[in-house]
Amino acid sequence: MLLSIGIYAQEHVDFGKKKEVISPEINPDKTVTFRLEAKEAKSVTVQGDCVPEGGALTKNEDGVWTFTTQPLAPELYSYSFNVDGIKALDPNNAFVTRDVATIVNIFLVGGGIADLYKVTDVPHGTVTKRWYESPTLQKTKRLTIYTPPGYEKSKDKYPVLYLMHGAGGDEEAWMELGRTSQILDNLIAQGKAKPMLVVMTNGNAGQTAAPGESSEGFVKPIFIRPEMFSGMTEKAFGDVISFIESEYRVKKEKASRAIAGLSMGGMHTIVISANFPNTFDYIGVFSSAMLQDKNSTVDFYQNMNQKLKVQKDNGFKLYWIGIGKDDFLYKKCVEFRSDLDTVNLKYIYKETNGGHTWSNWRVYLTEFVPMLFK
Amino acid sequence: MLLSIGIYAQEHVDFGKKKEVISPEINPDKTVTFRLEAKEAKSVTVQGDCVPEGGALTKNEDGVWTFTTQPLAPELYSYSFNVDGIKALDPNNAFVTRDVATIVNIFLVGGGIADLYKVTDVPHGTVTKRWYESPTLQKTKRLTIYTPPGYEKSKDKYPVLYLMHGAGGDEEAWMELGRTSQILDNLIAQGKAKPMLVVMTNGNAGQTAAPGESSEGFVKPIFIRPEMFSGMTEKAFGDVISFIESEYRVKKEKASRAIAGLSMGGMHTIVISANFPNTFDYIGVFSSAMLQDKNSTVDFYQNMNQKLKVQKDNGFKLYWIGIGKDDFLYKKCVEFRSDLDTVNLKYIYKETNGGHTWSNWRVYLTEFVPMLFK
Repeated sequence: MLLSIGIYAQEHVDFGKKKEVISPEINPDKTVTFRLEAKEAKSVTVQGDCVPEGGALTKNEDGVWTFTTQPLAPELYSYSFNVDGIKALDPNNAFVTRDVATIVNIFLVGGGIADLYKVTDVPHGTVTKRWYESPTLQKTKRLTIYTPPGYEKSKDKYPVLYLMHGAGGDEEAWMELGRTSQILDNLIAQGKAKPMLVVMTNGNAGQTAAPGESSEGFVKPIFIRPEMFSGMTEKAFGDVISFIESEYRVKKEKASRAIAGLSMGGMHTIVISANFPNTFDYIGVFSSAMLQDKNSTVDFYQNMNQKLKVQKDNGFKLYWIGIGKDDFLYKKCVEFRSDLDTVNLKYIYKETNGGHTWSNWRVYLTEFVPMLFK
Repeated sequence: MLLSIGIYAQEHVDFGKKKEVISPEINPDKTVTFRLEAKEAKSVTVQGDCVPEGGALTKNEDGVWTFTTQPLAPELYSYSFNVDGIKALDPNNAFVTRDVATIVNIFLVGGGIADLYKVTDVPHGTVTKRWYESPTLQKTKRLTIYTPPGYEKSKDKYPVLYLMHGAGGDEEAWMELGRTSQILDNLIAQGKAKPMLVVMTNGNAGQTAAPGESSEGFVKPIFIRPEMFSGMTEKAFGDVISFIESEYRVKKEKASRAIAGLSMGGMHTIVISANFPNTFDYIGVFSSAMLQDKNSTVDFYQNMNQKLKVQKDNGFKLYWIGIGKDDFLYKKCVEFRSDLDTVNLKYIYKETNGGHTWSNWRVYLTEFVPMLFK
């Protein structure tokens, strides 16, 4: 054994040669303790969905700052520190996620629904990053595809859920922030969901892949892209379905296709399923609304009530809507439900606490998926 | 458009409502400017392989700290800031990578070899995260598999490169830090490499998957695992080959199998290829050495010179060794080469500047891969 200090310096890796600081620590009573060594700092705070009001850490004699939360409900939480006005990640937590352009630390408080977000010792599906041609967009685009446990060995054909991200997101979002593969693995293992493929598209028509994963290079992700209301994602959606149905062992009829999305992806879901009104038997609209102007010049956005009427007349098995009471799109969702009522399109409506958050979208996924393909 | 400020608060996303700070900025002369807004800070420095001596930022009247490097050679670089003694990521750079337990920002200076590390508009391979059974380890373990462009449509059988990480790494390392899929896509598109599968294993015998990706949960990654010299990764390697050769359309003879690894993975490469002495025609040993004691009680580590002799007598096409002049394992590599000389096993030896770094391992991959399966 000849591991010298040299390797640490060369690799810029911190190993904590001193007494190790543990952070975050999830305590038996489900409180969580954050710690940060910062001898010279004047103030350290923690921000995140685990501390809605923020938390001020206090310093002990060793220069380690500490804050303990109230007992936390089961959830995947995110946070960051602020040291004398500067955002800092927790150097003792190696786990981060990117939400649009922001990197935050994450941790998971188990129990209840959050156990569905854990990697557990159940059979695991396969997760694939693959590129496909979109003739409509004249682009080669990247997809994330979840195939369920047993897919490779089976000769069966499987149903497909198409799952779409919101503004600022990409084909990574449902996996990284939505815990899709964990939720599917766990629901399938528990017999609560049918084995299915989940196809996570990149819903930004002007973008080929997630920031950093395309020839645009390491370009800072932005929230509102100029093509957001071009209708091109919706028009090009047939390219995705054609690719999946030619390349994977899947069932190719309406009863075996579901589509769902959050926020902008909810708009995509509404518009795609109404413009291809005999394609999906299962529709999931998470925290969304018809954002675009009803006088839009984009044909896919025009005459939506008439299109919804056709979709309703064609029949479907499930139209599911979920939104949080505090969502900034709440009023738009009320208006959209009123549109659906006008054409007598029956939907299941789930109203939760909270706002426009991944916390809600993960819950909606866990409720929507068990209703599919039954 | 009704996007209110509410969504920002709910999602903890920073959008920079003020004048945007751009950092890092890669200037036309290949210097790189770092910027950080920190009005109250007393000192801001930048650390990383782009600034070997570190850099001290200076504050302007707006409270924005700035530092510009010397012109940088083409490379994928990493860095972080230190603000009044506290490590901070660059809030204007959404791109990070994890090296063992440390999160750092990254950026790429193009040109030369670094153009191989970029995502370019060439056909892309598919990257799959998949689980397999290892009867030897009695574990279900996770792999990363790169299949080359055209694999899915082709009826051809492909050769396979098995590629192994170092201590502290896992099945994500060669993708995230090694830029394997970008290097393969680019070399294949340029006609410099044969289309091949690259199988990136988890070489920690006691671990099923990368930290955060197994039922161990979000456990802090460690550098030296207790089972490092158990020989179990080497003994169980046949399980990986069996899985790949039964599940993928690959060629199953010695001439179509390559194995390579860095540091601990270089040891795995040496030991596996010598203990299965008629399995691989191409062997790549990056920054490695025979770390274990020659008096080891582990049978796979015993009688290595005799095993290397058998491997040599069986014949092979390429034994390639690369190491940096400043590598802390340099002396061990000299000893290992002397062992090879003793049994008259001919190898290609590449000595580079620098130490035990991903910068070197990416270079070694770009040199090794074009020599395979020719």
